[in-house]
Amino acid sequence: MSAPLVARVVLLGASGYAGLEFLRLARRHDGIAIVALASREAAGRPARELSPLLAAAPGAWDLPDIVTPEAALAGLADGTADTLVSALPHGALAELMKLEPAWLEGPRRIVDLSGDRRDGSLGFAYGLPEMNRTRLAGATRVANPGCYPTAATLAALPAVEAGLTAGPFTVTALSGVTGAGRKPALKTSFAELDGGAAFYQVGSSHAHVVEMERNLTRSGADTTPRVAFAPQLVPMSRGILATVTAPLSRPMSDADLRDLYAARYRDEPFVTLLPPGEWPATHAVRGTNMVTVSVTAVHGGTTLMAVTAIDNLVKGAAGQAVQNLNLMTGHPEAAGLSEISPW
Amino acid sequence: MSAPLVARVVLLGASGYAGLEFLRLARRHDGIAIVALASREAAGRPARELSPLLAAAPGAWDLPDIVTPEAALAGLADGTADTLVSALPHGALAELMKLEPAWLEGPRRIVDLSGDRRDGSLGFAYGLPEMNRTRLAGATRVANPGCYPTAATLAALPAVEAGLTAGPFTVTALSGVTGAGRKPALKTSFAELDGGAAFYQVGSSHAHVVEMERNLTRSGADTTPRVAFAPQLVPMSRGILATVTAPLSRPMSDADLRDLYAARYRDEPFVTLLPPGEWPATHAVRGTNMVTVSVTAVHGGTTLMAVTAIDNLVKGAAGQAVQNLNLMTGHPEAAGLSEISPW
Amino acid sequence: MSAPLVARVVLLGASGYAGLEFLRLARRHDGIAIVALASREAAGRPARELSPLLAAAPGAWDLPDIVTPEAALAGLADGTADTLVSALPHGALAELMKLEPAWLEGPRRIVDLSGDRRDGSLGFAYGLPEMNRTRLAGATRVANPGCYPTAATLAALPAVEAGLTAGPFTVTALSGVTGAGRKPALKTSFAELDGGAAFYQVGSSHAHVVEMERNLTRSGADTTPRVAFAPQLVPMSRGILATVTAPLSRPMSDADLRDLYAARYRDEPFVTLLPPGEWPATHAVRGTNMVTVSVTAVHGGTTLMAVTAIDNLVKGAAGQAVQNLNLMTGHPEAAGLSEISPW
Amino acid sequence: MSAPLVARVVLLGASGYAGLEFLRLARRHDGIAIVALASREAAGRPARELSPLLAAAPGAWDLPDIVTPEAALAGLADGTADTLVSALPHGALAELMKLEPAWLEGPRRIVDLSGDRRDGSLGFAYGLPEMNRTRLAGATRVANPGCYPTAATLAALPAVEAGLTAGPFTVTALSGVTGAGRKPALKTSFAELDGGAAFYQVGSSHAHVVEMERNLTRSGADTTPRVAFAPQLVPMSRGILATVTAPLSRPMSDADLRDLYAARYRDEPFVTLLPPGEWPATHAVRGTNMVTVSVTAVHGGTTLMAVTAIDNLVKGAAGQAVQNLNLMTGHPEAAGLSEISPW
Repeated sequence: MSAPLVARVVLLGASGYAGLEFLRLARRHDGIAIVALASREAAGRPARELSPLLAAAPGAWDLPDIVTPEAALAGLADGTADTLVSALPHGALAELMKLEPAWLEGPRRIVDLSGDRRDGSLGFAYGLPEMNRTRLAGATRVANPGCYPTAATLAALPAVEAGLTAGPFTVTALSGVTGAGRKPALKTSFAELDGGAAFYQVGSSHAHVVEMERNLTRSGADTTPRVAFAPQLVPMSRGILATVTAPLSRPMSDADLRDLYAARYRDEPFVTLLPPGEWPATHAVRGTNMVTVSVTAVHGGTTLMAVTAIDNLVKGAAGQAVQNLNLMTGHPEAAGLSEISPW
Repeated sequence: MSAPLVARVVLLGASGYAGLEFLRLARRHDGIAIVALASREAAGRPARELSPLLAAAPGAWDLPDIVTPEAALAGLADGTADTLVSALPHGALAELMKLEPAWLEGPRRIVDLSGDRRDGSLGFAYGLPEMNRTRLAGATRVANPGCYPTAATLAALPAVEAGLTAGPFTVTALSGVTGAGRKPALKTSFAELDGGAAFYQVGSSHAHVVEMERNLTRSGADTTPRVAFAPQLVPMSRGILATVTAPLSRPMSDADLRDLYAARYRDEPFVTLLPPGEWPATHAVRGTNMVTVSVTAVHGGTTLMAVTAIDNLVKGAAGQAVQNLNLMTGHPEAAGLSEISPW
Repeated sequence: MSAPLVARVVLLGASGYAGLEFLRLARRHDGIAIVALASREAAGRPARELSPLLAAAPGAWDLPDIVTPEAALAGLADGTADTLVSALPHGALAELMKLEPAWLEGPRRIVDLSGDRRDGSLGFAYGLPEMNRTRLAGATRVANPGCYPTAATLAALPAVEAGLTAGPFTVTALSGVTGAGRKPALKTSFAELDGGAAFYQVGSSHAHVVEMERNLTRSGADTTPRVAFAPQLVPMSRGILATVTAPLSRPMSDADLRDLYAARYRDEPFVTLLPPGEWPATHAVRGTNMVTVSVTAVHGGTTLMAVTAIDNLVKGAAGQAVQNLNLMTGHPEAAGLSEISPW
Repeated sequence: MSAPLVARVVLLGASGYAGLEFLRLARRHDGIAIVALASREAAGRPARELSPLLAAAPGAWDLPDIVTPEAALAGLADGTADTLVSALPHGALAELMKLEPAWLEGPRRIVDLSGDRRDGSLGFAYGLPEMNRTRLAGATRVANPGCYPTAATLAALPAVEAGLTAGPFTVTALSGVTGAGRKPALKTSFAELDGGAAFYQVGSSHAHVVEMERNLTRSGADTTPRVAFAPQLVPMSRGILATVTAPLSRPMSDADLRDLYAARYRDEPFVTLLPPGEWPATHAVRGTNMVTVSVTAVHGGTTLMAVTAIDNLVKGAAGQAVQNLNLMTGHPEAAGLSEISPW
């Protein structure tokens, strides 16, 4: 049996929260070697200066110095690296690709954490393993899901797959502030955010709505269901709570729904269906790649109500990227994902 | 014209958050005189010891010393006071009444902040002025609404009254931790709560579900609509965000819904319909009796989605109690409610 | 008796925390009229857009629209305004003055909240009323003290004035994050700051050290005492706790020190000496112009240890500016300062 | 060479924060086996119910069920266990010992995290390895230091040992709220604590003052120096910042002091002297057994000012207990201490 493959990774967007979380996970993963890490604003500085938290972590100094994105991509061109993980904002990787389109043609692996390729364009597979595992095994290009779509899709997936609901779906969710990125802004400053919660982009204007609509379409269905979304920002650093409701095609009992979910998620390493009377809490998944789910039939059994909790930076971003890399490279799916984030 | 009536108030439950907030408001109200304030655990101590915040407030020392509930009720029996405001937990006032049922028969005014009489039993009017103002004018017994029902009802009321929806309703809401009361508990301690959010009592088990179902029943309707509820606790002290969705009986545009809501709430002193593209935030209503509302038609115009923000201790408790007292005693409805809470 | 003078104020730096707090106080002050308010980045927008908190405050819409600093200063030149309150960062007002030095020569009043003139240059009086009230009455130019120097000076002042200590002084203090200003920065973002506290500029490099050394020099003393300072940033929005220690020239008992402090502060409207066994807390002064003080003799009576709490934006900035304006214009010193900040 | 010794541990006080942290560390330590864990209020329940955080941690279910302290101590009597780690509050272990004094006479190891035996009574060695390593190697009874004394002692130790200062010492420190224990109380509830900081027990009344005075006495000195202490509670869960000042016996430069500290702490695995211009922050040590130190000479070189940061639950409690167990049992001193706490 051959030695397990080690992905030699170029990381773009290393100074953002998802990038930092990917670095944390990579340190504990035998199958991931960070060959280059890039951040335009931090180029030229040692990796430990990316974050005071990283500075405190043992082993941080083994990372290479930060370079520009262009310099990092050169490592892909010359074969030093074989895998690109991009934690850049939406659109930024496409901009870089314009500079050097050739490199994308090689056999290298790409995991893109932005929303750019979640529509499957350019041959990207959608990286939600619980929904799409078969296509992800051995894939070379993966679009990592958004944080809200991960939480919402896993809340409704068993019912959708079983044909119990075709929407329309209502999704309400709250998120910790790292979901808004690491770039300083007044609305995410401590003094403005602390002590208050706020809605934003209520309705269907949020960029994640289309992604949720795709995910909640049953295989073979003629039409895409509608999703309405009410996201909320709350004063905490990490975590998402999501509620999904949708009409059921036939009345269900709580027990029926639970049985369905239990069977569907029995073998999923990162999904936990909570016992009756327990409900998801972000603290219980903080720093992990876990999803906790509770499901109930409401409105006299005519409506699905399913709730989930995830850590937006792990299962909602960097942890799921590692899970996808594991599938792409043949590692056990949970490899490198057992540490709870100390941040 | 006669001088405005001054309610001579006995306050029960003075050491809880709603009780403290009522004291804050009463200090600025010419028509409310605190004759006695009661807290079993704090009896015998000066009012300023109820809270370090109260201690810092100018005028706190003009309040009478804290007494037992029984002693405070005696003031009603002997005519010293004419109004009872109870901020006791659910069931506690009924227990006290067993001891001395006679006094309840007099002509005195009662505002009960607990959930005990929100079903209208014993002749209590339901104290949501925006829905029930006519019955509250001059009423002698008022059941003050729950915090979640206030936020949810005002989100859906215009659509219900206009016959645009008869449910079923889905309500998701997050609340700051003062909604859980002031009694110390592990789950509301700083170290356990900070940094995390959690669902609780998802489905229809929360005590507020029945109250919401009553409120969202259209006048004259044969049946009561069903409400499903997903409440969430978040790490902040005050504030509620609520989302209400329900099928519309005919497709509506955002503009149509907004026009309906604008007309319905035009003359409401405490309800603000936000401009398109703005969404409720708890910071903007913190410490006030205001409700902010946004409404949109989702799922291709077939579903109502309305969101609101309130301060759970003001419009959700003590501020609404003052608003009700104003209606009961003939004061302007907004009297004593202009100060933003400094706490 | 003539009607009280109304200061017609131009406010520079309206979009910062001190500027916003000054606006809050001015709204409740009969002797302050805001004639113009300036913020370079917010020029052209209505005042309510300065802050979501301001937007929620009744009366916010009565404020004039925001203009550039240059436009606002023009109002001083043409006599529309007679008072300049500058909440600009250090050095910024001096830069503006270079553009139009003439206007500074008029009879107008200036209160500068920056550190530029706390050394008394250009004829500015130092605006700590408890130390310098005589010079402030009727003054035309006042340099408003820094937040840390206010907290530290009032901790030691009675002992210094009584000749009980000539230093050296050690000051440790913690501050809420509004003390770092409102400009977004990574270190004051919610996700980076929440849950942690940090030292900064320990020793004598902080800009406030020189100001403290001046303040703690006894009148007539030949030399200026040394101050060492250890400031700390903690995860809260407002408030300062300060500890000052210094050797006593002769051993004192706790009771002796308390008597001295009680006598010294007896007539100070904004200083409260706490009873033995109670210690300053920021919550008890939050949103107020109050200073709470406790004092004890430690090291066998040979060392003064005095601790204080203030709100850095009120007594440490805008509230003290109003207190100074009251002295400058002949209003009662506490005029307009009774409201507790709702923010 | 023989296999390393495995301590078979009975843990008392498992439901408190220090007890929980000890469990976290023990899971990753090859030399610690938890034989029994006790908590009077949680007896009979599975270990995972001690905390939602523990429930989420992999491996939590391998722990034995919770028992009463008496039942746990029986395991020591019958030889099942050989090591007692007590995270009980001060005085509680002594109470238990009265019931069964005999067992204390055996050869078993004891680590007591309370303050009861830090005076060395009953043959307990003081468990601050950086100060007392020689006595701890192979010791059978160790009194684990208090959190504040750990932070303060390590700030001043090099200067004391070098004879550069004999006090008196002034210690100011802030602590996160887990330092106040896990028992629910109004003052540590989220709604009361959030947003504010407070002094408590300023002077020399705090129980830790005597411990600091002992620690800061130079070996062979005739007298014990005085310590004055100003502790402060701030709104965060974990972490201590401490400042220690004391007169120097001869003037020193910053560089001289730094050289002294660098030499003293060069070989200490858990102490980091920060570079000039960097200062301790709790985030950088959160969840670790590390101490960060900065030192400067103030007041013209005549006064030592040293500042430190620790995690009060790790180096200030459970981590130091593991460090001591390592010394007691011959393991490498850092064994089991590399994980950063995910809580």
